[in-house]
Amino acid sequence: MALTAARTPPGVLELLPLDQIAFQDMLDTIRRSFERFGFLPVETPVMELTDVLLTKEGGETERQVYFVQSTGNLGKEGTPEMALRFDLTVPLARYVAEHEHQLNFPFRRYQMQRVYRGERQQRGRFREFYQCDIDVIGKDALSIRYDAELPAVIYQVFRDLKIGPFTIQLNNRKLLRGFFENLGQSDAQRQALILREIDKLDKVGSDKVADTLRGGDFCLSDTDVTKLLDFVQTRSSSHADAMEKLAALGTGSVTFNEGIAELREVLELIRALGVPEAYYALNLSIARGLDYYTGTVYETHLLEHPQIGSICSGGRYENLAGHYTKSHLPGVGISIGATRLYWQLREAGLIGTGTSTVQVLVTQMDEAELPRYLAIANELRQAGINTEVVLEGGKLARQFKYAEKAGIAFAVVCGSDEIARDAVVIKDLRRREQFEVARAEMVKALRVEIEQAQAMG
Amino acid sequence: MALTAARTPPGVLELLPLDQIAFQDMLDTIRRSFERFGFLPVETPVMELTDVLLTKEGGETERQVYFVQSTGNLGKEGTPEMALRFDLTVPLARYVAEHEHQLNFPFRRYQMQRVYRGERQQRGRFREFYQCDIDVIGKDALSIRYDAELPAVIYQVFRDLKIGPFTIQLNNRKLLRGFFENLGQSDAQRQALILREIDKLDKVGSDKVADTLRGGDFCLSDTDVTKLLDFVQTRSSSHADAMEKLAALGTGSVTFNEGIAELREVLELIRALGVPEAYYALNLSIARGLDYYTGTVYETHLLEHPQIGSICSGGRYENLAGHYTKSHLPGVGISIGATRLYWQLREAGLIGTGTSTVQVLVTQMDEAELPRYLAIANELRQAGINTEVVLEGGKLARQFKYAEKAGIAFAVVCGSDEIARDAVVIKDLRRREQFEVARAEMVKALRVEIEQAQAMG
Repeated sequence: MALTAARTPPGVLELLPLDQIAFQDMLDTIRRSFERFGFLPVETPVMELTDVLLTKEGGETERQVYFVQSTGNLGKEGTPEMALRFDLTVPLARYVAEHEHQLNFPFRRYQMQRVYRGERQQRGRFREFYQCDIDVIGKDALSIRYDAELPAVIYQVFRDLKIGPFTIQLNNRKLLRGFFENLGQSDAQRQALILREIDKLDKVGSDKVADTLRGGDFCLSDTDVTKLLDFVQTRSSSHADAMEKLAALGTGSVTFNEGIAELREVLELIRALGVPEAYYALNLSIARGLDYYTGTVYETHLLEHPQIGSICSGGRYENLAGHYTKSHLPGVGISIGATRLYWQLREAGLIGTGTSTVQVLVTQMDEAELPRYLAIANELRQAGINTEVVLEGGKLARQFKYAEKAGIAFAVVCGSDEIARDAVVIKDLRRREQFEVARAEMVKALRVEIEQAQAMG
Repeated sequence: MALTAARTPPGVLELLPLDQIAFQDMLDTIRRSFERFGFLPVETPVMELTDVLLTKEGGETERQVYFVQSTGNLGKEGTPEMALRFDLTVPLARYVAEHEHQLNFPFRRYQMQRVYRGERQQRGRFREFYQCDIDVIGKDALSIRYDAELPAVIYQVFRDLKIGPFTIQLNNRKLLRGFFENLGQSDAQRQALILREIDKLDKVGSDKVADTLRGGDFCLSDTDVTKLLDFVQTRSSSHADAMEKLAALGTGSVTFNEGIAELREVLELIRALGVPEAYYALNLSIARGLDYYTGTVYETHLLEHPQIGSICSGGRYENLAGHYTKSHLPGVGISIGATRLYWQLREAGLIGTGTSTVQVLVTQMDEAELPRYLAIANELRQAGINTEVVLEGGKLARQFKYAEKAGIAFAVVCGSDEIARDAVVIKDLRRREQFEVARAEMVKALRVEIEQAQAMG
């Protein structure tokens, strides 16, 4: 028979078991933090009806969509009936609109599932990837206070992931919009073009950006360019500094003043929620999705790995589900692109392979004693210890080698000597140490060893 | 703007948050048991390359496949490049063949992901559903002993799911094949046709089946029909009874004798693994996928809900990945269709909505004290208690009502009286009781309450 080459489609991240364990640990940590803050789990189908998914016409999004067709419908004219979700926001909007009368508002949900985009093939770009989202959705209105809760979740997530120091950077679209209005730039499209230039600051430097803004396309005055660059380069270094910098902005249009008032309140509540001030800061250049966010916006950056870019972003939006319901549903949310984050952290050496989920290997010294080894394994499992038992036997040295290669930390050995003494030997495969314990003490001893090994990481 | 009706595609199971929690609990229990027995996690992409997924030509499977196409490829001639997986077995075969040299054998993996089938629309039939699979894959050979380990996993899974008594039923394809050979029926296709009739026993009764087997299509003798019906109706009522019934079968062809020897060994090891004998039994009518399984086969039935059918099935197969590699990779595996199982258990009233993942609601009695409430919430969260804090305020009675509706068991209340005494009130929303504790004792008191509530289910 001719063989088919076993391979995955391009643009997916498939992991070996120990890497999968590391990735799963990351997802579990994220999920734990989401639940700690009172967010409820939601899962939606991977496919949505095309007319539901693509309510907006055309655009970048639609071109990257994967359509789904059953065999019987192949070759039929027209757009296929279903497509794979490209984010978790559209499914959330559909979910909230569909189940509106069965949900409690403010509705706090988390969702951690894969999404699909027909990205061009490129290293580190994925066509299938996990997103981990939380959102709070209000009915008719949603207090600005929720905008402070999300940074507290971000803080806990990345503190618990132990991937080094980070800053949650905040801005407010009203402040940004008000500032442009003060400069006489009220047109949203023109604002977007200016912001696109400002986005290049890190890459090309402020002189080049200033040149462009003074140039033919924009014709901003020297004073305005200076004001603009000063404004967007505003960063705070402490809580007090953030408050001072906001005060120093003075007053302006209604929108501008609202932006400042919202940022102040959010910053105060972030502090009240126990987030240390080293972990949050103003960054008045942050804009995020221009046609979507309307108030608070967030980015999160690893201080020691700026090249990774924002690892968690989001913000406040005016109305979640206008395409599906007449209800006004304002919300605030954040998203972590977990697959890309995992990949980047691994590339940066911040995440290694996981410890095996298997904690103990019960070895097989004497085939005739197999029932005894099975009973030992059963005892360990009932005590909550993840246990593999060698069923096929072979030389003990080979069994240890297997355990080491598989990343299993402990082995239990029980030969005729140990049986005679009603004991077992516990072998620590990492430290290459071993000791004998009474069989009755085996579970207790292994629990201590496992806890110590976990504490040492 | 014209609204689009918010709706999911037909044939998917989308859950409200408290149901999602119940479902997630079920998946977590299954995953915990899989890990307890030393199985390692694997996830594969939802889409596979079409030529990899559909190595077998035609057949039922292919007609139910969902193909995936990016926008740019719509309308192009020919079969689309990618398709959604319809089970977890083909992806496992591809995974093991692709990563063969980086895996440890016997390779023990679990996989819990969704699969996709273009099923006809019908109540209780799903087009998207979770499968939870474990398999052990050997290189070149795999001891029969592994066939005994899987029932031990099944036992733990369903014991921990607490859905009532169940039996893991065992048979062996070799025994079945040998028995047919003894009857002079060596043709595999003819065996399959006879088995299809036998499958109707429960529905039409043994008289009808006997008539058919004696009739024109089969022409079996009276003696053979009696032998056959006696054989396939063999069930054991205890471990000793199973051994006796196997002994009573006598001897036959090499295949027949192998089947008996394998069943004996598997039964003995299941017992050695600590599975109580009430939970496993012989059922010599079980055949399962006829062109796939070659040895041990399993089904699992709930004693009090026989109409649900098998809730966990599987068996031994000769070679996992013959389409992708020349390596000989025998294996044994089981599969739980978790979405369908959850749906059936819910229909049967065996599963209700879950308890909220939110354990405590910190209420807001006095808006001016918001920072205090945030600090309380922070303290609870840092102590590992899942906490929601009321940010928008309103009447306390309405806040309690929200908590009850949301399935949150406890509320913390802190007004000026409590503040003066440096205390908080803990309210049990289910028992409608409340008591005051010193603020310093809050975490401890809530931990006790939560534990008690959990212990009472």
